[in-house]
Amino acid sequence: MRKTEEKIRVGIIGAASLTSGVLLKLLANHRYATIVLLASETQDGQEVGDIHRFLRNILDLKTVRYNSDEVIEECDVVFFSKPHGEFLEGASDLINKARKIKPKIKFIDLSADFRLKDANSYKEWYGFVHKDEFLLESAVYGLSEVYYQEIKKAFLIANPGCYPTCTILSVAPLFGDQLVDIERAIIVEAICGVSGAGRKPNERNLAMEVEENIKPYKIGIHPHIPEIEQELGLLIKDKISALFVPHVASFKYGMLTTTYLKLQKEMVFEDIVERYREFYKNKPFIRIRKKGEYPEIQNVESTNFCDIGIQIDKRTDICIIMGCIDNLLKGAAGQAIQNMNIMFGLDETEGLPFSNILRRVNS
Amino acid sequence: MRKTEEKIRVGIIGAASLTSGVLLKLLANHRYATIVLLASETQDGQEVGDIHRFLRNILDLKTVRYNSDEVIEECDVVFFSKPHGEFLEGASDLINKARKIKPKIKFIDLSADFRLKDANSYKEWYGFVHKDEFLLESAVYGLSEVYYQEIKKAFLIANPGCYPTCTILSVAPLFGDQLVDIERAIIVEAICGVSGAGRKPNERNLAMEVEENIKPYKIGIHPHIPEIEQELGLLIKDKISALFVPHVASFKYGMLTTTYLKLQKEMVFEDIVERYREFYKNKPFIRIRKKGEYPEIQNVESTNFCDIGIQIDKRTDICIIMGCIDNLLKGAAGQAIQNMNIMFGLDETEGLPFSNILRRVNS
Amino acid sequence: MRKTEEKIRVGIIGAASLTSGVLLKLLANHRYATIVLLASETQDGQEVGDIHRFLRNILDLKTVRYNSDEVIEECDVVFFSKPHGEFLEGASDLINKARKIKPKIKFIDLSADFRLKDANSYKEWYGFVHKDEFLLESAVYGLSEVYYQEIKKAFLIANPGCYPTCTILSVAPLFGDQLVDIERAIIVEAICGVSGAGRKPNERNLAMEVEENIKPYKIGIHPHIPEIEQELGLLIKDKISALFVPHVASFKYGMLTTTYLKLQKEMVFEDIVERYREFYKNKPFIRIRKKGEYPEIQNVESTNFCDIGIQIDKRTDICIIMGCIDNLLKGAAGQAIQNMNIMFGLDETEGLPFSNILRRVNS
Amino acid sequence: MRKTEEKIRVGIIGAASLTSGVLLKLLANHRYATIVLLASETQDGQEVGDIHRFLRNILDLKTVRYNSDEVIEECDVVFFSKPHGEFLEGASDLINKARKIKPKIKFIDLSADFRLKDANSYKEWYGFVHKDEFLLESAVYGLSEVYYQEIKKAFLIANPGCYPTCTILSVAPLFGDQLVDIERAIIVEAICGVSGAGRKPNERNLAMEVEENIKPYKIGIHPHIPEIEQELGLLIKDKISALFVPHVASFKYGMLTTTYLKLQKEMVFEDIVERYREFYKNKPFIRIRKKGEYPEIQNVESTNFCDIGIQIDKRTDICIIMGCIDNLLKGAAGQAIQNMNIMFGLDETEGLPFSNILRRVNS
Repeated sequence: MRKTEEKIRVGIIGAASLTSGVLLKLLANHRYATIVLLASETQDGQEVGDIHRFLRNILDLKTVRYNSDEVIEECDVVFFSKPHGEFLEGASDLINKARKIKPKIKFIDLSADFRLKDANSYKEWYGFVHKDEFLLESAVYGLSEVYYQEIKKAFLIANPGCYPTCTILSVAPLFGDQLVDIERAIIVEAICGVSGAGRKPNERNLAMEVEENIKPYKIGIHPHIPEIEQELGLLIKDKISALFVPHVASFKYGMLTTTYLKLQKEMVFEDIVERYREFYKNKPFIRIRKKGEYPEIQNVESTNFCDIGIQIDKRTDICIIMGCIDNLLKGAAGQAIQNMNIMFGLDETEGLPFSNILRRVNS
Repeated sequence: MRKTEEKIRVGIIGAASLTSGVLLKLLANHRYATIVLLASETQDGQEVGDIHRFLRNILDLKTVRYNSDEVIEECDVVFFSKPHGEFLEGASDLINKARKIKPKIKFIDLSADFRLKDANSYKEWYGFVHKDEFLLESAVYGLSEVYYQEIKKAFLIANPGCYPTCTILSVAPLFGDQLVDIERAIIVEAICGVSGAGRKPNERNLAMEVEENIKPYKIGIHPHIPEIEQELGLLIKDKISALFVPHVASFKYGMLTTTYLKLQKEMVFEDIVERYREFYKNKPFIRIRKKGEYPEIQNVESTNFCDIGIQIDKRTDICIIMGCIDNLLKGAAGQAIQNMNIMFGLDETEGLPFSNILRRVNS
Repeated sequence: MRKTEEKIRVGIIGAASLTSGVLLKLLANHRYATIVLLASETQDGQEVGDIHRFLRNILDLKTVRYNSDEVIEECDVVFFSKPHGEFLEGASDLINKARKIKPKIKFIDLSADFRLKDANSYKEWYGFVHKDEFLLESAVYGLSEVYYQEIKKAFLIANPGCYPTCTILSVAPLFGDQLVDIERAIIVEAICGVSGAGRKPNERNLAMEVEENIKPYKIGIHPHIPEIEQELGLLIKDKISALFVPHVASFKYGMLTTTYLKLQKEMVFEDIVERYREFYKNKPFIRIRKKGEYPEIQNVESTNFCDIGIQIDKRTDICIIMGCIDNLLKGAAGQAIQNMNIMFGLDETEGLPFSNILRRVNS
Repeated sequence: MRKTEEKIRVGIIGAASLTSGVLLKLLANHRYATIVLLASETQDGQEVGDIHRFLRNILDLKTVRYNSDEVIEECDVVFFSKPHGEFLEGASDLINKARKIKPKIKFIDLSADFRLKDANSYKEWYGFVHKDEFLLESAVYGLSEVYYQEIKKAFLIANPGCYPTCTILSVAPLFGDQLVDIERAIIVEAICGVSGAGRKPNERNLAMEVEENIKPYKIGIHPHIPEIEQELGLLIKDKISALFVPHVASFKYGMLTTTYLKLQKEMVFEDIVERYREFYKNKPFIRIRKKGEYPEIQNVESTNFCDIGIQIDKRTDICIIMGCIDNLLKGAAGQAIQNMNIMFGLDETEGLPFSNILRRVNS
C-alpha cells in the first residue's frame, strides 16, 4: 500500500465549479491524495473557502491563474472541470506537452470533450469543431465498472456524463448480454436535481423556477444522447437509437433514470438479477434492489452508489429499469475520484463515502 | 342567469379529506353555491377551521355525522370524498333512496367507486366487490371536456382520477381521431406531488421520505391503469394496454404525465396541434403549449387548467405528449366543481380560478 | 355598485416584475378593473404570457415602452413596480404632470420611493437622494387597515414593504394603545420566502443557495428598518428603535415575523386579544389565532390575510407577537389592489382571494 | 494509536430511530469501531437495511431484542437512542449492573434522561419522575468542546439536545467570561429541519404540513429550556432565564439558533471574536464566521461543525449570536461519536466528516 508521505499530487483546472466543490470535499477526505494546485480564470487569487463556502476553515488554499508548465511540474494528476469545449484546445496543448516531459502524468476531464469517439458528433451535438483525433482515440471512457482494465492503463479519462452514467450502468448487463430488442428505440426518461444546471444563474436554476415544480427540457436534443447511444451500441455491438427525455426537478442532488426496453425473449426478475450480479461481481458501488423495490434519490445522495431497480410488466411485456445516482458523485466528481484510484492502483473506493466498510466487504 | 338568492345547496360527505379542503375553498368563492352540510365520521362535530386550518375565520361551519335523510332534504348536490370502496354501499343506498324522493338531486363521487364500467375490475384492481351494476351503468365519467353533453344530463358523476384526467386529456385528440398505433402498449410515466398521497400519515407522505427525493411506486399495478385503458379504449374504439409508471415527488401540488406513442402515420407538430385545437374548441381549461415549449407544474398550480405539450422525436419516430394539471383541482375538486357547473347549467368556469377572465374570453 | 361597463382602467409600469405577475393575476379576477397598459423597459413589445408564463392563453396583452402622455390618457390608476429609486424621477414627473391634466388619476407605488417621510433617510438607507418633498408629504402610507380614511382620499399611495406590513400589522394595537415599553429596543426576527429576493438572478435566489437552507442577511441594516420605526413611532407617538434580523428561507411565498416586546404592565392573552379585536373591527383580512395557536405560512399563502399569533411568556415576562402574510399579496400586490379598491370606493376585498365570502361576512 | 484489530465494540439500543441511522452511517466509516449489537423493540429481527434503507447492501446486520447481559458481554460502549423517559429504568438497571461486572464499559445516552442535574425538573418539563440521583450526578453533560476533560473520565454521557448544543456553543465564550447582562432574559429564536420531529408520523412531520411552510411551536415550554438555562447558568455562575422560540422548517437537516444578548460593556466584533478564538482554541469543529458573514445550514449539513456568526447592532446595542449545526450530527449522533472518541482516547474527529483533514490541521 502507498505510503501516506508519497501522496498523489492533484491539480484542478476550473476550480470554482459545483463539481470542483465536490472534488475538493472528496479529496479532503482522501488518505493518499493532496491538493497542490487550483486554477480558476473567473476567481483567480481567491481563498477556496470564499468560492466554496462549506470549505471555509477546512482547506487553506488559493486559486491561481492557469499555467501549463506549473501544472505539469506540480501535479501527478489533473482534473479538468470546465464547460464543454472551453478548455478543449488548452487540454490538447497541455496533454501533448506533458506527455513529452512527464509521461506518467494523468488527466481526467469532467467535460464532454473527449467522450465521443466520432469527432463529427461534436459539431452536431455541442456546436464546436473537434480536431484532436489522437486524443479522442486515446481517451478512455471512464465508466469505472465497465472499463476498469482500460482505465488502469489510460493517461486520459473522459469522465462520463451524469445521465449516461446512470442510464448505461442500469442497463449495461442487458446490452452486454445481447438481451435487448433494438429494433425499436429505447426510451429513457430522466429526472435530475437542480445541481445539474450548474452554478451560473440561468433560467433553469433559479429557486423561483425550480421549487415546487418539475420541467422537461431538451427532449430528444440533449447532448448526452450520442454518448448513451455510443456506449450502449458498443456493448450490444450494433447501432442503437434512444429517445431521451430529461427533466429538472426541485431537489438539489441526485438523479433517476427510467429506461423502457423490449427484451429479445421472455425473462423473469430472477433471471435478470442473476445477470446483473454476474456482470457487476465485486463492484462495490452497484446495488441492485430486491423484487418490488425501487431506487430512490435519498438512498444514493452524497454517495458514489448506483442503485438499480428492475421490473418486468407482464401486462405489456415491457422491461423497466431504473437507475439512481448522485449526479455530482457517481455522475461526476465521485466517479472521477474512483477513476483516479484505479489509475493509481489504489482501492477504487478510497476517499469515497463508506470507503472503510466497502473496502472491508470487498476484500 | 341564476339569481344569487337561489343558490345551489351543497353537501360534502367526507369533509376532512385534502380534496374536501379544496372543494370548500372553491365553493367559498362560488357565486351560485352555498355549503349547507358537511359530514365527517372521523371529525364529527368539529369546526371546519379546525380541520382545514386555512379556513379559520372564513367558513363558520361544523361537521355532522352522516344521515341520509338529512342529506336528501338539505342538498341539491352532494360530493362524496371518501376513500375508494368505503362509502360504496352508503352511496348506493343514498342515491337509490334519493332518486325516489327528490329526483333532481345530483351526486358527484370523487372516489373510484363508479369509474369502471366493468364491475369485475374492482375486485382485481381495488380488492373489493362491486354489485351495483345499475349505478355503474348510469354513472357518467366526469371528464368534463370529453363528456360535456352526458354530464349535463347525469344524476351521478364518477369524477375521474387525477392520473387518468391528466393522461387522457393530453392524448384524447390522438385517440379520438384513431391516430395511435395500439399494437404496442402505450407508456405513461407520471410524477405527482405529495398531496396525491393524502392526508393520513403513511410511508409515502412523511416529509423525511418525500423531501429532496423522488420515488417510483406501484409500477404496472396502480389502480388508475384500468381507468386509463377503459377511456382511451372507448375513444379509439378498441382494446388498448398501457404501462403506467407513477412517482411521488417532493412538491406539494400538481402532476406531470408523459405519454410515449407510436402514431399510425407520420405527422408534424402543426398537424397535431390543429387536431388538438379542433378537439378542444371552446374548452377554457385546455392550454396547448407552443412548439418547443413544455408544460410545467408551476403554471397550473392552484388552477383548473390542463396544459399540454407535444413533441415529435424525428430520430426515433416517437410522439411524446405531456400533460400537466393540479392534481387537487383539475385532478379532483376543480373538475368536480366544473362538473357541478355543467350539471346545473352554469358557465363551466364558475367558482374556478380565473373564472372572470375565462368567461369573458369564451363568451 | 359600479357598473361593469365602467371599469377602472389600470396601467402598470414595470410589468415584468414578480409583483406585477401577481398584480396581473389578481386584476384578471377583478370584476371592476381592466388592464389597459403594461409598460416594461426590459421586455418591451412582448406578450405578457411570455413574461409571466402562467398567464399564457389567459391574458392577451403586449408590453409597451413607457410614455407619460399615454399613461395619463389611458389610465384611471397606475401601479409602479420598479426597483427602489429607479423610477423616482419618472414618477415625480408623471404625477405632477397628471395632476394638472387629469386630477382624478391615482398612483400606487410598490417601491419604497414614497414611504419615508424624512427625505434624508433615503440617502442613509437606500443610497439615493430624494428631492420631491411635496410628494413625500402628500403620499399616504398604504397600510390599509391603519390608514383606511387617508387612503380613501389619497392620489398617491406608498404601498408598504412586505416586512413592515407584517411587523406593523401584528403589533399595531399594542403600539396604538401605548402598551409597549419602548425604553428597550424591540426585536424583530423575520423569515421570508425566496420570492422576496425578486426575479433577477442574484446570490440570494439561486436554487442551490436557497433549497434546504436558511440564511440571515442584512442584520440591522435592512432598509425596511426606518419604515418600521417611522410607523410604530407614529402609532405610539414617540421615537422607537428596532433591531431587525431577516432571513431568506427555502419556501417560495410568504413570511413570518416574530416581535419581542416588553409591555408597560402585566397583561394576559385575553386582554391583549380584546384590544386586537377592537383595533381590527370589521377588517376582513386580519385573523387572530386562538390561544396556543400560532400562524403559519401555508394558511396565508396566496391570500391577502395577515394572521397574528400572541403569546405571553410568564417565565421571562416577554410578549411574543407573530405575524404571517404572503409577501407578494398582503406584502405587495394584494395590499396594492386593496388600496385601489378603497380609493375607488369598492369593497376592499374585491378581486382578492375569498372575496365572495369575505364580502358576505363583513356586510 | 489503537490497532485496527482491537476495535471498540459498539452496541445501540433503539436502533430504528433517525439518530441511530446517522450513528450507523458514522460508525460504518469509523476506523476503530465495529458495530456488534443493535437492539430494537419495534423492529426486532430485521435487517438493518430494511430499517435504514440507505444502508442496504452496506451493513449486513440484524436487530435483536434487548437483553442486558448480552449487551454487557458484547459491548465496550453502548448508545441509547430511545425517546425521553422510555429507557430510563432500563438504563439505570443496565448501567448499575454493568459497573459491577465490567467497570470499563461506557454509556452514551442520546435522550434527555441524564441531562438535567435537578431530578425535579423532569417532572416539570418532561412529565415523568426521575429517581436515579446517583446517575444524574455521575453523568457528564457531553458538550464536547466545554467538558472535554470530564468526558475523558466519564462512564455515562448525557449527550446534549440539539437546540442546547447549538445555543450554548454559540454563546459559551460570552457566558464563560461573564460578559452577559443577565438582568434581562436572553431570547433564543431557533429554526430546525423536519428531522428534528423524528420518524414517527405526527402533525409536525408530514410533508403536507412541512413543505413550503414554517411553524413556531412550544414557545416558552420546550423541554430544552431547562437544559439551556442550567448550562449557561453554570458557565456564568448565576441563575439565568431564557425565552426559547423554536420553529420547524421545510428543510430536512440542520438548525440555526439566534440569541439576543445585552452585554455588560461595550464591545466590538474584534474583541468578541478574540474571546471566541481563545475559548475554542484547538477545537476542530468550531468555525467562526468573518465579520458580516453569517452561518447557514448548507455549510454544516452532514458535518459535525458548529458555525458561529457574531454581530453587534450599534443602533440598539444588542449583541446577536447565531449558531448553526446539523441537528443529527453535532446535535445528536455526531457529538455522540465525538464523545466516544474522547472517552476512548482517540482523536476526537475520528469517523466524523472531514476527519482526515481536520486531524492534519489540528496536529
